[in-house]
Amino acid sequence: MQDLKYDTDDRIVALATPWAPSALAVIRVSGPGCIEAVATCFSRPAKLTSAPGNSVVLGNLIDSRGQVLDEVLATVFRAPRSYTGQDSVELSCHGSLPGLARIVAALTGEGGAKGPFRPAGPGEFTLRAFLNGKLDLTRAEAVQELVAARTQTAQTLALHRLSGSVEGRIRELTRRLLDLTALLNIQLDYAEDDVETTPVPFALLDAVKAELVNLAATFRTGQVYQEGIRLVLAGRTNAGKSSLFNLFLKEDRSIVSDEHGTTRDWLESWVSLGGIPVRLFDTAGLRESDSAVEREGIRRTREILDAADVILYLIAGDVGPDAEDLAFLREAQDGRLLVVFTKADLATLGSDLGLPSLALSSKTGEGFDALEDAVKALVPGANRVGSDEPVIDSLRQKNLLDRAIAALDQVKTGTDLGVPLDLIALDVKDALDALGEITGEVTTADVLDHMFSRFCVGK
Amino acid sequence: MQDLKYDTDDRIVALATPWAPSALAVIRVSGPGCIEAVATCFSRPAKLTSAPGNSVVLGNLIDSRGQVLDEVLATVFRAPRSYTGQDSVELSCHGSLPGLARIVAALTGEGGAKGPFRPAGPGEFTLRAFLNGKLDLTRAEAVQELVAARTQTAQTLALHRLSGSVEGRIRELTRRLLDLTALLNIQLDYAEDDVETTPVPFALLDAVKAELVNLAATFRTGQVYQEGIRLVLAGRTNAGKSSLFNLFLKEDRSIVSDEHGTTRDWLESWVSLGGIPVRLFDTAGLRESDSAVEREGIRRTREILDAADVILYLIAGDVGPDAEDLAFLREAQDGRLLVVFTKADLATLGSDLGLPSLALSSKTGEGFDALEDAVKALVPGANRVGSDEPVIDSLRQKNLLDRAIAALDQVKTGTDLGVPLDLIALDVKDALDALGEITGEVTTADVLDHMFSRFCVGK
Repeated sequence: MQDLKYDTDDRIVALATPWAPSALAVIRVSGPGCIEAVATCFSRPAKLTSAPGNSVVLGNLIDSRGQVLDEVLATVFRAPRSYTGQDSVELSCHGSLPGLARIVAALTGEGGAKGPFRPAGPGEFTLRAFLNGKLDLTRAEAVQELVAARTQTAQTLALHRLSGSVEGRIRELTRRLLDLTALLNIQLDYAEDDVETTPVPFALLDAVKAELVNLAATFRTGQVYQEGIRLVLAGRTNAGKSSLFNLFLKEDRSIVSDEHGTTRDWLESWVSLGGIPVRLFDTAGLRESDSAVEREGIRRTREILDAADVILYLIAGDVGPDAEDLAFLREAQDGRLLVVFTKADLATLGSDLGLPSLALSSKTGEGFDALEDAVKALVPGANRVGSDEPVIDSLRQKNLLDRAIAALDQVKTGTDLGVPLDLIALDVKDALDALGEITGEVTTADVLDHMFSRFCVGK
Repeated sequence: MQDLKYDTDDRIVALATPWAPSALAVIRVSGPGCIEAVATCFSRPAKLTSAPGNSVVLGNLIDSRGQVLDEVLATVFRAPRSYTGQDSVELSCHGSLPGLARIVAALTGEGGAKGPFRPAGPGEFTLRAFLNGKLDLTRAEAVQELVAARTQTAQTLALHRLSGSVEGRIRELTRRLLDLTALLNIQLDYAEDDVETTPVPFALLDAVKAELVNLAATFRTGQVYQEGIRLVLAGRTNAGKSSLFNLFLKEDRSIVSDEHGTTRDWLESWVSLGGIPVRLFDTAGLRESDSAVEREGIRRTREILDAADVILYLIAGDVGPDAEDLAFLREAQDGRLLVVFTKADLATLGSDLGLPSLALSSKTGEGFDALEDAVKALVPGANRVGSDEPVIDSLRQKNLLDRAIAALDQVKTGTDLGVPLDLIALDVKDALDALGEITGEVTTADVLDHMFSRFCVGK
């Protein structure tokens, strides 16, 4: 990998825990000679350099003037038994921000002097792990997906990929395509004998293709659970939007953050709806207005509605739809809409609007489980989770699967058109290359630079 | 310690790193049998339970249904060689928030079932360390002070205390007071012989007291560097407040956070001024006004000025003070004020206002170092740092030092008044008790509960 953005044989350092005061913080270093390099800043250098792999040494980190920076636990990892496959040290420090700044400064160089380490780039530890054969690219991508997961379902799916489920599936399909290639080669060898056989083992081809199509189709599911969906609460003033917004917050205990729009036109918050990360928007009323300020608010609300994956249109159950509601619903017949009759504890007015609808009481919570199911029914891919099948969440992997599928389709088309067998074999080779790129057996510096640049530093 | 709020012999768990997505997160557990308890949730239980102390085991954490929660590195610490002095495990996990929530849930019990651990209270790990003789109370307090330190100087001072500098000083003074007690006892034994001797060794007493007074006096310094000071920029509109505010931000690269007032009346930010954490306020103009809104802003500005430790009153150097400036300065002669002539690059108008003053250019930064020194000169205790002398930052320690000093004063007063020697000896005993409470040799459950409740969880 000559063209990689980073040298992968020098020594790097990064804070691996968040930049916030806390009990502990971990600074990790990796690279050839890094144990000896840490020892130059350590109160017990001999103890550190002689420590066996996977062992912990207590000592003080000291700067070049001999000043104590912190009392730390240094965990020594020796190549190849480390995350990166290189010699590594994890320094468990006190979670003091000025202390961490001093330590990183001492390790990377102070006052113009060059230190024994350079600051790691995004994902550089995982990049080194990949280059040293510790994990393939599907598992490397899963590392970042795991950290970014917003719900326990998303975390479980990423962990499944990290354990090698996608890699295993790709390697199995690769093996079967290699079998197919072997059969084709036999055909090519015997071609001169003019023996009458089926030139291509279509049953094998179709089986592999079907599995590739299935795996590619899981991308939609992976995206739903990893990236989440935008769920917008709409409806007239007093339809119960705020009450339902609060019910979402109450039902979901794994809220990660509350955010407010830059204007007061809407409220938003991340919640988990049956394992799907949901970015929930409570819009301002949609009432038409002559006021320029309100018109601006309504314009923003429409923008939020346009970007929604699912729109819950709320109608007060004790009042029923009015002309404004009906106008909106007629206009919005686009499959993203669910009509919710709120205040179902007050009345249970039915309605036949030709749209999926349900009744709900934000007061008692009645109907909330049904709402969860109804929302999932509107989101393609949302109901596929639960089996032990791998689910992908990487557009890169999806595109490469599509390339492999197209190549196998070419095999069929080519055979039908009487294309010579040696050219057919090239299409199979293209499918194999695509699968090799998924795991990283075939790759380029550009692909790696692009992939790891999206990682967080310290990973 | 029967009355402690917490049982200290059960098993506790806490996240020791901040609650934010990151490369790594550390969950720590402590308590008798905790290695075996973690093993019940670990994919390689035998490997874990047989691991020597200070060694690392790679494996999966699993929940009670056998579901993998995360791939982790488990560092095993065996009593007494651990932070708490008990068996402990540190689990280095992926920094995924839903993953961390799942792990803590599995360790503390899920779905109503009781888990092998209970969530740790604030400072409980350090409390156990203290109870197991791993550190005294001055070092325990230093642990929390270290985490809360806002500047490198504050971190250095806390680290100095953590290394035992205060403890060492207290133990040395205790030893000398015990010598004094021994001398008193000899006097008491020989009292019947009616030998004419100096009843109390005042030279020894005075020396100990002087050291106690010195140490108590460092509290002001400790507070300045740990808690910081409030520095307010005041002056008329166009005096250059915003430029100087921005210069502070530019000069200081260790800004921890920016905050904005709830109204637009002021801006504030934490900066480091020569190692002192400074909460810097940029006030709105002080111009009198008839507008109710502006009057409210002026009222708030006055509140901020009242709470200031140092006020920099800015006067544009190219214009000089006007009647309004002079009125303010006459009113505010209280030792907290420093007059700053800004735009010193435009002009260097002198002024004789009878107040400390200096000239500064926010544009070139000229005069900023002098400003730093001038601010420090206005803050009692700010210039005491730099030696290797311990500096305390605990009101508890300060109050106990004062109690010890008062008790030694009683010895003198009592001697002058002819109080019998056995009563004098009780005063020395009281001083010794106060010193014993500082290190924790003499303590109560109430003191410990109160002290550790101010710690962060996971520490």
